[in-house]
Amino acid sequence: MYEVTLDPSGRTLALSPGGNAARRFHAVWLRDNAWDPETRAPGNGQRLIALRDIPAETTITSAQVSGQVLRLTFVPEHKVIEYDIPWLIAHAYDRVAPRVAGWTAPEIETWDSGFVNRVPASDFGVVRSDSAALRDWLDQVARYGFGKLVSGPAKDGALFEVVELFGYVRETNYGRHFEVRTEVNPTNLAYTGLGLQAHTDNPYRDPVPTVQVLYCLESSAAGGENMVVDGYRAAERLREESPEWFDVLTRHCARFEYAGSDGVVLRSRRPMIELAPDGELVAVRFNNRSTAAITDVPFDAMETYYAAYRRFGEIIDDPAMEVTFRLNPGECFVVDNTRVLHARKAYSGMGTRWLQGCYADKDGILSKLAALGGGSREAAE
Amino acid sequence: MYEVTLDPSGRTLALSPGGNAARRFHAVWLRDNAWDPETRAPGNGQRLIALRDIPAETTITSAQVSGQVLRLTFVPEHKVIEYDIPWLIAHAYDRVAPRVAGWTAPEIETWDSGFVNRVPASDFGVVRSDSAALRDWLDQVARYGFGKLVSGPAKDGALFEVVELFGYVRETNYGRHFEVRTEVNPTNLAYTGLGLQAHTDNPYRDPVPTVQVLYCLESSAAGGENMVVDGYRAAERLREESPEWFDVLTRHCARFEYAGSDGVVLRSRRPMIELAPDGELVAVRFNNRSTAAITDVPFDAMETYYAAYRRFGEIIDDPAMEVTFRLNPGECFVVDNTRVLHARKAYSGMGTRWLQGCYADKDGILSKLAALGGGSREAAE
Repeated sequence: MYEVTLDPSGRTLALSPGGNAARRFHAVWLRDNAWDPETRAPGNGQRLIALRDIPAETTITSAQVSGQVLRLTFVPEHKVIEYDIPWLIAHAYDRVAPRVAGWTAPEIETWDSGFVNRVPASDFGVVRSDSAALRDWLDQVARYGFGKLVSGPAKDGALFEVVELFGYVRETNYGRHFEVRTEVNPTNLAYTGLGLQAHTDNPYRDPVPTVQVLYCLESSAAGGENMVVDGYRAAERLREESPEWFDVLTRHCARFEYAGSDGVVLRSRRPMIELAPDGELVAVRFNNRSTAAITDVPFDAMETYYAAYRRFGEIIDDPAMEVTFRLNPGECFVVDNTRVLHARKAYSGMGTRWLQGCYADKDGILSKLAALGGGSREAAE
Repeated sequence: MYEVTLDPSGRTLALSPGGNAARRFHAVWLRDNAWDPETRAPGNGQRLIALRDIPAETTITSAQVSGQVLRLTFVPEHKVIEYDIPWLIAHAYDRVAPRVAGWTAPEIETWDSGFVNRVPASDFGVVRSDSAALRDWLDQVARYGFGKLVSGPAKDGALFEVVELFGYVRETNYGRHFEVRTEVNPTNLAYTGLGLQAHTDNPYRDPVPTVQVLYCLESSAAGGENMVVDGYRAAERLREESPEWFDVLTRHCARFEYAGSDGVVLRSRRPMIELAPDGELVAVRFNNRSTAAITDVPFDAMETYYAAYRRFGEIIDDPAMEVTFRLNPGECFVVDNTRVLHARKAYSGMGTRWLQGCYADKDGILSKLAALGGGSREAAE
């Protein structure tokens, strides 16, 4: 089924999976990605050698296919290594052209207000006891950037049990968790009864906490619904409306600052829409309260920057983008704070509303998901 | 001393500090950065309005200077706002041309082996009790990316007292802290007696832990010295030797993976040398053990990529780059894990060597430093 063609230089080869286009590989890449027990620790797969241990002049002198196995001989090491061909095909880098800036991984799905009837919501007790249910819920959180858990205990500290499902609390100057309820002398607007514009949390922190958990303990006040907006979809919409506006928000850093408490002066310098070097959309930061003076945009670009910033905010504020839901006691939501903005609608002073929040990290979600056999980035590509 | 010239359009103005070049500002930027109590909360400086609350057609109808104060009238709001002119000058964005890719902030100083006699080392007891001493030590950690503390207790858990100086432990799957000593069946090479190539920790995590603390409790084995390399200096050297090699490592993502323990499958996709969109050097990731198959480099660039990756490793391995020191019981070092690579020299099986390590975050260091009046990024610019 497979055919291999070794280039006469020995520096590259081409592997043809039955009938499909050939995938080329470099000798040095192949040697570096060998899985023999001298290259990779059999137990945990850690690489035992460094690139310095592989001669720069490495070439391949012989290449043979036998079933699913590719057998290569490398010189000057005179080392014979066998490769699993499906692994090679899955990791082929001989691919087509670069993608449009702002692309997202295939296992990400962006959404707008139409998503309201499909909000991921699982039973807290079930995901705690059933690893398949946990995997499915984590898969949705990874895919959509947020998810609810329902039917949990209305118990002080229950949010830590949510974090234990997938990771670890990221403690900050706000504590291991923070209380969200009306206070007379707020030190942070998040604690008041005002409605807030949708935002990501702590953009003034670097790295930002990549996950937030908000857990409801009491909710007798009218209003105060939670609302989420997919920042990735908002960025996509901005790009569709004006590639120039999208570009200007990705090409320049904004600045964020928080200095509300004694002993805390947090500042960051990061773009509102962050791309990987190859254009993957990797983070959105948006928070009117903590945006500092933006001083990294050249004078000639500032008017365009502000026009883009304004339009990005309008898109975020557009009801067509928002999904609103109410958290009842014992319910919580988990949100990818690098992607999904959240807000609270205004609520009245009658009754009480008490939530507990904490931060955690997204790598825990993705790790747990992968360990449970869920949709890994590699599998999907 | 100051002169202001309002553009007839009302959309920009130019401020001339006595004799120096004029700095131009846009009306919308000025309105957004007002410090009146309706725009910014007097207590904590949080912005009380969003950009949506500022009319898009905002212009300035009147501009007057009086001493250090600039008084502007905005329409259509008919709002009069006063600005502190030195604040405006400090936040001027009407600046000169873009910098060379890989620039670092002025409060960063890169170093090589010649730094060995200037390694920041403070007395643990002193920095705990004297905030000026703490500020000076944190300033050095921020500037050089690492620093030692000496004369601390050789006590289990003392590393947490180090973290309390500036921030919070970043708990991971390795725990709130991890033990580093020889083990017979290592699940991770960091626990064995082998020497390790200089590396940053946990590049497979996203976000990586931005700070690591390594605290020595016992050290009777020969060898096992600690070694650090300034990854920023290594990146600068690579750029000097070959801008093409520097560029290829910044323009493409590497991949990192760790799947050594049950339930843990951590993967990331980030460049080895990471730049902000405007070219600031913001992170280095380098770890031969956990580098996964690199599949995001196009075929035509892979040979150059590997040449650059090889040379970057050679620079990191060059003794002219390394600073080596020994940690004695009660001594520790704190390292910026987004910048400074660390390694351990090989040690013999005779005697014991016991360190405790933990992760934390750099924003805590910078926040504490700023709160103590130390070198903030803004002050330095």
